[in-house]
Amino acid sequence: MKNHLLTVALLAAIAAPTTLIAEEKPAYRSSKEIIDAAPASAWRTPVPENLLYMEFGEGRLAIIELAPQFAPRHVENIRRLARGGFWDGTSIYRSQDNFVVQFGDAAADEPAKAKPIPKDVAQKLPAEFKRSARGLAFTAIPDHDGWAAEVGFVDGFHAARNQADGEAWMTHCYGLLGAGRGNAPDSSIGAELYVVTGQSPRALDGNITSVGRVLRGMEFLSVLPRGPEPLGMYTDPAMHTPINRIRLGSEIPASERLQLEVMRTDAPSFAEAVEARRNRRDAWYVQPAGHIDLCNISVPVREKAKPRQ
Amino acid sequence: MKNHLLTVALLAAIAAPTTLIAEEKPAYRSSKEIIDAAPASAWRTPVPENLLYMEFGEGRLAIIELAPQFAPRHVENIRRLARGGFWDGTSIYRSQDNFVVQFGDAAADEPAKAKPIPKDVAQKLPAEFKRSARGLAFTAIPDHDGWAAEVGFVDGFHAARNQADGEAWMTHCYGLLGAGRGNAPDSSIGAELYVVTGQSPRALDGNITSVGRVLRGMEFLSVLPRGPEPLGMYTDPAMHTPINRIRLGSEIPASERLQLEVMRTDAPSFAEAVEARRNRRDAWYVQPAGHIDLCNISVPVREKAKPRQ
Repeated sequence: MKNHLLTVALLAAIAAPTTLIAEEKPAYRSSKEIIDAAPASAWRTPVPENLLYMEFGEGRLAIIELAPQFAPRHVENIRRLARGGFWDGTSIYRSQDNFVVQFGDAAADEPAKAKPIPKDVAQKLPAEFKRSARGLAFTAIPDHDGWAAEVGFVDGFHAARNQADGEAWMTHCYGLLGAGRGNAPDSSIGAELYVVTGQSPRALDGNITSVGRVLRGMEFLSVLPRGPEPLGMYTDPAMHTPINRIRLGSEIPASERLQLEVMRTDAPSFAEAVEARRNRRDAWYVQPAGHIDLCNISVPVREKAKPRQ
Repeated sequence: MKNHLLTVALLAAIAAPTTLIAEEKPAYRSSKEIIDAAPASAWRTPVPENLLYMEFGEGRLAIIELAPQFAPRHVENIRRLARGGFWDGTSIYRSQDNFVVQFGDAAADEPAKAKPIPKDVAQKLPAEFKRSARGLAFTAIPDHDGWAAEVGFVDGFHAARNQADGEAWMTHCYGLLGAGRGNAPDSSIGAELYVVTGQSPRALDGNITSVGRVLRGMEFLSVLPRGPEPLGMYTDPAMHTPINRIRLGSEIPASERLQLEVMRTDAPSFAEAVEARRNRRDAWYVQPAGHIDLCNISVPVREKAKPRQ
């Protein structure tokens, strides 16, 4: 291991003789080592009002963090839908390979069968595709992005903006939660939701309302059998994955809540961890990439050790 | 639908008054419409010597096209391994969420248990991470790529090159087949293989030998339960997905072969289909992206209708 690292450092020194000599370089730490050693200040605890606990399939749990800073009207609707138990007994009715899973009321488009929307939920909302970038703490990454002028993170969410005082929006990376819509831009209310499970479909950015991202449970959502119909719809309703219930974190007894922490995307440790992925220098890598795409960056999530009682 | 398209065209005309007026523009055709209407000359039939038929799990089939133009030594080994029945009775022993599945001999690293490599298979091969770009028909796309100077396609494979007379290599997009290796660059012989199932891990480009891509069956490979161990390894061998057999296309009786055709990536229809994805103008899209990432492009595969008998 040591020999391998030495070789990499020597090769780098030969290729770029003006760089510091190998001995002066700080030892390479992997992304995992940096994350494991990050101080407590590099972590935040999402507020329970922004969390959804989604129980589905055979005892599966996904935990989602909502992004009211990007879609306040949709997030307020989603909170009301969760409080009203709207999704309890609904299903995941779509799984399109290398794209998305979608859930909610499978009969939403059939007026006679559709599940009623609770009365305190807005039946119509404006599109929230983008927002003003003003007032957003945007942590940019230096890497070129083909889809947007600038990309990076806002409060742990993958995001883009066109200029500091222009517009900002969430980007379609793995685990993004969005609000399904019809052809009319303002046809989503947050009842039908999708999660990105495939190669980042960034063409959707700015064309649909993004409402959050999955913190836990992607490994269950991503393996749902693909639907055989176009768009990954299931032909047979028996293939739907039942949703037992979706609850808002703040409605869950404190003893049942998971103590999740998300790494702060504005923390120095996060920037270091990204750099360690951008230029991997562990023994296996022959050639560091010198680049990373926004959607190749995972924002770390951990479960806090419970305090002793 | 028609009204929606008209609206989009009118909005475009208003936003950019110097463009042709809407009436002069050819009607927008979706990527699917372009592919469906492509002439026979836009399709090619892969040669059977370059196909692997992989039978796994409960009656699942994946069909892989090998890329001898990028990794001739590995592909020759893989053909010999298939002819020798090396993979029959082995398994898919790794499934890492948002990354890869890996298959072959789960005991490959345990000398006492490892399955013998057939005698006509090279036990040691040089790394084939990159090759000369000379002599390769490279169809570039104009879109900026963060990882490489130029990206595009070679014979249906996603690829990159640094200059026309420099180096070329296959890129890690969804469905890529690569040869697993240890820390030594020349430690792969093609017996242990992986398939990309997650967000394109382009940092692997140029660091490992890519040998082909999956033409059919990704929707089965991508849903294998994720392994709980680091790197997606399964703790319990009972979770391995058995591989019944892997056969070389040319060893399969003609009557059992699927008549697959792959779209030519140097065909005008392919370029048009990509452009229709780069700038979607169907009724749903409010804002065309004006860009596409290499790994967002799927190379169409179809099954040829059997001739009447």
